[in-house]
Amino acid sequence: MKSYIKHDPWKIIEDKFNPDYNKISESICSLGNGKFGQRANFEETFSGKTLQGNYVSGVYYPDKTRVGWWKNGYPEYFAKMLNAPDWTGIKINIEGEELDLAKCKVENFSRVLDMKRGVLERSFTVETESGKRLEVNSTRFLSIARDENAAIKYTVTPKNFSAKAVITSGVDADIKNEDSNYDEKFWIEIDKAADENIFVTAETKKTKFRVCTAVINFLPEVIDTKSVSKEKYAAKQYTVQLTENKSFTIYKYAAVTSTMYYGENELLSKTLESLKKAANDGFDTLLKEQENAWDEKWKESDIIIEGDVAAQQGIRFNIFQLNQTYTGRDERLNIGPKGFTGEKYGGTTYWDTEAYCLPFYLATADKKVAHSLLVYRWKHLKKAIENAEKLGFTHGAALYPMVTANGEECHNEWEITFEEIHRNAAIANAVRIYVDYTGEDKYLAEYGLEVLIGISRFWAQRVNWSTDKEKYVMLGVTGPNEYENNVNNNWYTSYSAVQNLKYTLWAIDFVKNNYAADYQRIKTVCDFNEQETEKWKDIIEKMYLGYDEKRKVFIQHDGFLDKELIPVSELDPKVRPINQHWSWDRILRSCYIKQADVLQGLYFFENQFDNETIKRNFEFYEQFTVHESSLSSCIHNILAAKVGLFDKAYQYYLNASRLDLDDYNNDTCDGCHITSMGGTWMTIVQGFGGMRIKDGVPSFDPIIPEKWQKYAFKIMHRDTLLKIEVVRDSVSVENLGSKTVKVLIKGYPAEIQPHSKTIKIL
Amino acid sequence: MKSYIKHDPWKIIEDKFNPDYNKISESICSLGNGKFGQRANFEETFSGKTLQGNYVSGVYYPDKTRVGWWKNGYPEYFAKMLNAPDWTGIKINIEGEELDLAKCKVENFSRVLDMKRGVLERSFTVETESGKRLEVNSTRFLSIARDENAAIKYTVTPKNFSAKAVITSGVDADIKNEDSNYDEKFWIEIDKAADENIFVTAETKKTKFRVCTAVINFLPEVIDTKSVSKEKYAAKQYTVQLTENKSFTIYKYAAVTSTMYYGENELLSKTLESLKKAANDGFDTLLKEQENAWDEKWKESDIIIEGDVAAQQGIRFNIFQLNQTYTGRDERLNIGPKGFTGEKYGGTTYWDTEAYCLPFYLATADKKVAHSLLVYRWKHLKKAIENAEKLGFTHGAALYPMVTANGEECHNEWEITFEEIHRNAAIANAVRIYVDYTGEDKYLAEYGLEVLIGISRFWAQRVNWSTDKEKYVMLGVTGPNEYENNVNNNWYTSYSAVQNLKYTLWAIDFVKNNYAADYQRIKTVCDFNEQETEKWKDIIEKMYLGYDEKRKVFIQHDGFLDKELIPVSELDPKVRPINQHWSWDRILRSCYIKQADVLQGLYFFENQFDNETIKRNFEFYEQFTVHESSLSSCIHNILAAKVGLFDKAYQYYLNASRLDLDDYNNDTCDGCHITSMGGTWMTIVQGFGGMRIKDGVPSFDPIIPEKWQKYAFKIMHRDTLLKIEVVRDSVSVENLGSKTVKVLIKGYPAEIQPHSKTIKIL
Repeated sequence: MKSYIKHDPWKIIEDKFNPDYNKISESICSLGNGKFGQRANFEETFSGKTLQGNYVSGVYYPDKTRVGWWKNGYPEYFAKMLNAPDWTGIKINIEGEELDLAKCKVENFSRVLDMKRGVLERSFTVETESGKRLEVNSTRFLSIARDENAAIKYTVTPKNFSAKAVITSGVDADIKNEDSNYDEKFWIEIDKAADENIFVTAETKKTKFRVCTAVINFLPEVIDTKSVSKEKYAAKQYTVQLTENKSFTIYKYAAVTSTMYYGENELLSKTLESLKKAANDGFDTLLKEQENAWDEKWKESDIIIEGDVAAQQGIRFNIFQLNQTYTGRDERLNIGPKGFTGEKYGGTTYWDTEAYCLPFYLATADKKVAHSLLVYRWKHLKKAIENAEKLGFTHGAALYPMVTANGEECHNEWEITFEEIHRNAAIANAVRIYVDYTGEDKYLAEYGLEVLIGISRFWAQRVNWSTDKEKYVMLGVTGPNEYENNVNNNWYTSYSAVQNLKYTLWAIDFVKNNYAADYQRIKTVCDFNEQETEKWKDIIEKMYLGYDEKRKVFIQHDGFLDKELIPVSELDPKVRPINQHWSWDRILRSCYIKQADVLQGLYFFENQFDNETIKRNFEFYEQFTVHESSLSSCIHNILAAKVGLFDKAYQYYLNASRLDLDDYNNDTCDGCHITSMGGTWMTIVQGFGGMRIKDGVPSFDPIIPEKWQKYAFKIMHRDTLLKIEVVRDSVSVENLGSKTVKVLIKGYPAEIQPHSKTIKIL
Repeated sequence: MKSYIKHDPWKIIEDKFNPDYNKISESICSLGNGKFGQRANFEETFSGKTLQGNYVSGVYYPDKTRVGWWKNGYPEYFAKMLNAPDWTGIKINIEGEELDLAKCKVENFSRVLDMKRGVLERSFTVETESGKRLEVNSTRFLSIARDENAAIKYTVTPKNFSAKAVITSGVDADIKNEDSNYDEKFWIEIDKAADENIFVTAETKKTKFRVCTAVINFLPEVIDTKSVSKEKYAAKQYTVQLTENKSFTIYKYAAVTSTMYYGENELLSKTLESLKKAANDGFDTLLKEQENAWDEKWKESDIIIEGDVAAQQGIRFNIFQLNQTYTGRDERLNIGPKGFTGEKYGGTTYWDTEAYCLPFYLATADKKVAHSLLVYRWKHLKKAIENAEKLGFTHGAALYPMVTANGEECHNEWEITFEEIHRNAAIANAVRIYVDYTGEDKYLAEYGLEVLIGISRFWAQRVNWSTDKEKYVMLGVTGPNEYENNVNNNWYTSYSAVQNLKYTLWAIDFVKNNYAADYQRIKTVCDFNEQETEKWKDIIEKMYLGYDEKRKVFIQHDGFLDKELIPVSELDPKVRPINQHWSWDRILRSCYIKQADVLQGLYFFENQFDNETIKRNFEFYEQFTVHESSLSSCIHNILAAKVGLFDKAYQYYLNASRLDLDDYNNDTCDGCHITSMGGTWMTIVQGFGGMRIKDGVPSFDPIIPEKWQKYAFKIMHRDTLLKIEVVRDSVSVENLGSKTVKVLIKGYPAEIQPHSKTIKIL
C-alpha cells in the first residue's frame, strides 16, 4: 500500500517527483476516450522507470500460445491488446542536452489528472546537468467529443538562459508489447511521411488491423525544420530560439484511426481530415468541448460523498476510468481488465464485464451502452459454440471464452480455459439483469434467448449423473476462487447453472407467448426442440448442491471442509498476499479463498436466500477470504451492508475504491483494475444505497457510513433519472425525469412525481 | 499400430525402404553404450523425414521454462538432454549428385539392428536421378567395451559407372534440440580442427559441459584431400575414384568424451589418444570386442521364448535397449525416458527408474549397478530438501523432483511438479526393494535411512487433519493416473505414504540396533529426533484411505465414483487413444485411467492383500484403464497373472514388449519408451515367472502362455545366478552359482546345490 497521491475531491494529484512510483502514476493518470487511450507517459524523453503504453480499442494480436506442455483443446493463440504507435512524444534538446527528468534536478513537480474535465496536467522546473533551469507545463487530453482526436499544449520557459533548442515531435510506431510471448514486435510499417503531413500507418501482423496515427505541431517561431524518418517512425525536428523568461508553447494535435472504422484506401485521408479539422478548431475549442462532454457524463454518473475526501476521490476515480474506457458506441468493443492503462492480461473481455461492469453502465448511461455489451456476446455465440465443440460438446452447446478479443478463447491454462466455466453463468445472468432493469423483454426475442439456449445446453451436457449420489454432479470445475482448481461440485457454478436453466425455461415460455414469430425463428436458428427442456427440468430438480448440516453453510466444493480451516486473521501478515509468498501447491491446499465464491452466488441470487442464510455463509467464508482479486471487496461490501455488518462494509468500500490510488496489491504499475471499478460503483449504489430492482421497481434500503455526512448518486432507470441522496438521518429520492415513477424506499412503496422528491427517515 | 518390422529372434529387421516410417526406425535401431548413443540416422545425406539425434549421457541444458502463466514454486529451468555433436555423417557426392535416399530410386533396402552383437547394418542399392546405380553397405556400432569409441564401415560399389566422387566426413556440432523452448541452440564452439586431427570441442551454454568429438577416416585411395571448416563444423573432403563393380570402403572411427570425465585442459588430448588407439586396433578388433561384450551381457540377462518369435523379439529388444542405455558405471547418470533414442521429455530421471527399471538391473547385473541407481538419489537428497523448502516444507522434508538431470526439479506443470508427489513413495520403496533383494542391510545405514527420513518428514507435513473425517487427509494430489489432477486422497499415494512411514520406523529401529555409530551420525546429519516418529505413527494409524463398501474396492480418489462409469470397451475405437482425440477437460472428467493407479499400489504392496482383493480391484479398475502410458501394461500383466487371468496377462505382455516395435501409441518416431522396458522384463520374470522375494528367498510361481513351448530367464540373486526354465508342464530352477541356495517353487521350499536343478510339475 502506498499513499503518495494527494487527497482531493476531483483531482488525482502527484505533487512530488516520485521516479520510483512513476509506473504507478502512469497507470493512475491514464487517459482514454473509448476509442483509444494511453498511460500518462511523459512527453519528453524519460530514461527512468516507465511503461510506454498507447492502446487502440479493438486492435489486438493473436500471439502464439506459450505453454509448458500442450493439452488438447488449448487455443492456438493468446489475443493481446496491442501497445500501439505513440503520438505523444515531444523531445527537447538544448545545446546537446536532452531534457530527461531522470537526469535533471526536478523541482515543483506536479502531475494532476483533473477528472472533472478529463485533462492531464503536468508542471515542473528542472535544472539540467549544465545548470540550465527550465520550467515546463503541459496539458493533454483525449477528446471524448471527437474520439479520433487528442491534443497537447506543451510550454517551456527558460529561467536562467537563452539558447537554441531542437524540438522533435512525431509518431513512433516501433513499439513492443512488454508481454510478448516470444519477444516479437507486432507492428509492420505500411506508410509514413514527415513532410507536409506527419503520420505513420502501421499494420498488425496476422490480424492486419491498420492504425493510422497522424500529428500536427504548431510552434510559434522556427529557425529550421527537418524531417526525421526511420523505420516505423516519422517526426519533425524544429530548431527554435528559447529566450530567458519567455514561454515557448508547442501545440500538438493528433488523430488516431483504424481500419475498424475506415477502408484501407481512405484511412490516411480520413485521418488527415480529422486531424486538420481538430487543429483548425484549435486547442481551446477542443478543450471546451472536452469539459462539456465530461460535464454531461458527470451529470448522470457522479457520486457525491461528503465528509470523506479519500472516499470521494476514490469513487470518482473509478467512475472516471469506467467512462473513459467504454462508451458503448461500438458493439465490437468491450472493457479490458486494464482498459487503456496497461497491457497485462491481454484479451479485452472477461466475465468481469457481465458480473461487475454491466450494472454501472445500465444505471449511468443510455441503455444503448448496456445493450452494446450484451449484443457483443450475442455476436460471439457462434464462436462460443465452436469453442464448446473443440472440447467435445455438441448440438449448439455454447461455452463462452474466459478471455477473448474476438469471441475465440485465448487463455491457455487448462484449469481456467476448460474449467472456469462459471463465466457462462454470468453471461446468461446478464440477460436476466438487463431485462429486469430495462424492462425491454423484446431483447430476449431478438438476441437473449439464443444465448440462453446455448448456455443451457452446455450445462445439460456438462453435468453427469452420479449413481452413488443419485444426483447430477458437476465435476472438474474452477470457481471464481481461482485458488482452487479442478474441484467437484463448486456450489457457485452448480447453483448458477440451475438458475440459468430456470431462467431459460421461463424465457422460452415468455418468448413463445409474446413473440411467436421470433420464437419460430429461434427454434430454427438454434435447431431447438422443446423436448430438450425435459433434461433441463430434471437437472433443476436433481442438481447436487453441497450443504453442511453441522455449520449450516453451502459447501464451496467437495472436500473444502477437509482442509485445515485457519482464519486469515491468524496468518502472519508477512505472508500476505499469499500469492506473492506461497507456492501454488500450498495455496491450492489451503483454505484461503481468493475472491467471493459461495458469496458471489448469494450476491447474484440474493432474493432466493433469507438474511440469516446470507449472514451465516458470509461469516463462515469471509474469515478465509484473502481478497487477492480486485473483484472481491465489492461483493463483500454489498453482502456486509445487506446483513448489517456496516463497519466491514465501509472497510471493503475503501479497499475497492482506492485499490489503485493506494496501490493495495502492489501491481498498479502494470495498469489499473478497470473492470473491478464497476464493482466499486456497486458498493455505493447497491452496498450503501441498498439499491435493487424488485419486479422492475427500483428499491432503496440505504445505510450511511459513520464518517460520511452525505452521499448522493443518480441512476437512470427506464428513461427516468433518479437522484438518491442519503444524509445521516434520512434518504431522499428525487425524480429528475418527466414521468411519475414507482420506487420502494426501505421496503415502502412510493410514487414520485416529476421534479419532486420523497424523503424517508433512516 | 504398425507391423513393418520383420519378426526374428535376434534381429530388428526393416527389409524395405519406408521413408514415412524412417523416424520410427531411427528410434528403434538406436545404438548406445551407457556413455553416449544415437538414433539410427543415415550416414549419407537424407532430405526426407528424419530426427537427427546424438546424445551424451549426463550432458544437459537448463532451458528457460516456458509456461503460460507463472506460478510460485515453478523451477526456472527445464533440463533438456542435449542433442549432441554428430560424428556419423559420411556424405557422398558423385559428379555433383548428392547421395540422398529421398531423391533416388532405392532397392534392396535393409536396416538391421543385430541385438546379439550390438551392431547396426544397412544395405541398399540406389539409382540416382542421372541413372547411376550404386550399392551401399554400412556397419556401425558403439563400443560397449570402450565406451568412448564408435566405428563405421561404409562401402560403396558402383554398379553401372565409374566416376570421381567427393566424400565428406567429419563432425557437426551445429546441432539443435527439436524441443528447445525458444528455438535457441545450446552449443557454442570452443575449438576445432580439420587437419591432422578432425574434431570439434563444443560447450553447452550455462551448464558449460564440454564435449569433444573426434573422428579419423580411412579411405583406400584418395586423389585429393581438402579441409572443410565452418562454425561448429570440421570435416575433410576426399576426392576419390569410384570404379564400376569395385567396392570402395571407408572406415570412420570416433571418440566422444566430455568434461564429466576429463579436465578441460586434457579433454582434447585424451580424446585423440582414445581415438587413435581405437583406430590403430582397427575395425575388426573393435567389432570382436563388441560381440564379446554383448555376449557377456546376454549370458546374464537373456530371456528365451520358444514358440513365439514376436514375443521373443519383443523381450530381447527391451533387454537390449536397457543394457545399452545404462551400465551403472557412473552414479551421476540415470535412465532417461527415451534413453539415447530421442530427446522428448527432457530431463533424465523420472520415478520410472525406481518403479520400473530397478528390478531389471537388480536381477541381471552386478549389484553395483542397482546400487548406483540408489546412490544417485541419496546424492540428490539435499536438493530434494531444497525443492520441498521452495514449496514451504521445513525441517528436512524432502520432495524428490518429478523430472531432473541434476537433482533440481525441472518440470513446470503445477499439477505434476507440485502434486505428483507419489514419486517420493517409489524412491523410498526402492530402498526396501534393494535391501530385500540384495540382503545388504548396511545400505540403510550408509545411505538409505537418510532418504527415508527426508521422505517421511515430507509425508508428515503433506497430510492435514480433517476435523470432519477425523482422519489425516492428503489433499491436492496427482496419482500415477495423470488423467486426474489435483484430487484429494488418491488411494495409491496415501497408502504408499503409510507404507513409507512404516518402513522408515522399521529401518530406524534396525539401524539403531545394528549400526549404532551410523545411527548417531544420521541423527546429527538429519537433525533427527525420535519424537518426530510420534506423528508418523499417528498418521499410520489414522490415514484416510477411501474404500467403497458397495463395490468392495479401494477408491482411486475422492469423487471417482461420481463419474460416469462406462467401460473402455464401450468407447468408439475412433476416439482411441483418448489423449489424441479428446480435450483435456473431457479426459479429466471421464473415468478413464491412463495407467495403473490403485493397481500400482496393489502391485507394490501385493503381500498385504489377499488374491480376492487384488482380483476385485483389478476387475473394477481395469475396465476403465486406457493404458496410454507405456508404464501400464506391465503392472496389469503381473496382476493378471497373479489372479489367474492368463489370457489378459499374455495380451498385456505383447502390448508391453512390442510397444515400440509395433508403434502401438503412434509416438515411437520421437524415441523409444526406454524406462518402460524394465517393466517388460518384469512381465516375464514377475508376471509369467511369478518371481518374488519372500523373506530374502527367491520364489517362483510360474505360468506359461498357451502359445509358448518354453521360456527361460536368469536372475542374479545375492551372487548366485539362477536359471529358470518353464516348459508346458514343468518348471526347473537351476543353480549356476557356487553356493547352495534356497528357493521357493510354487510355494514349496527347495535347496538347490551348485550346478544342479530342481524341477517341479506345473
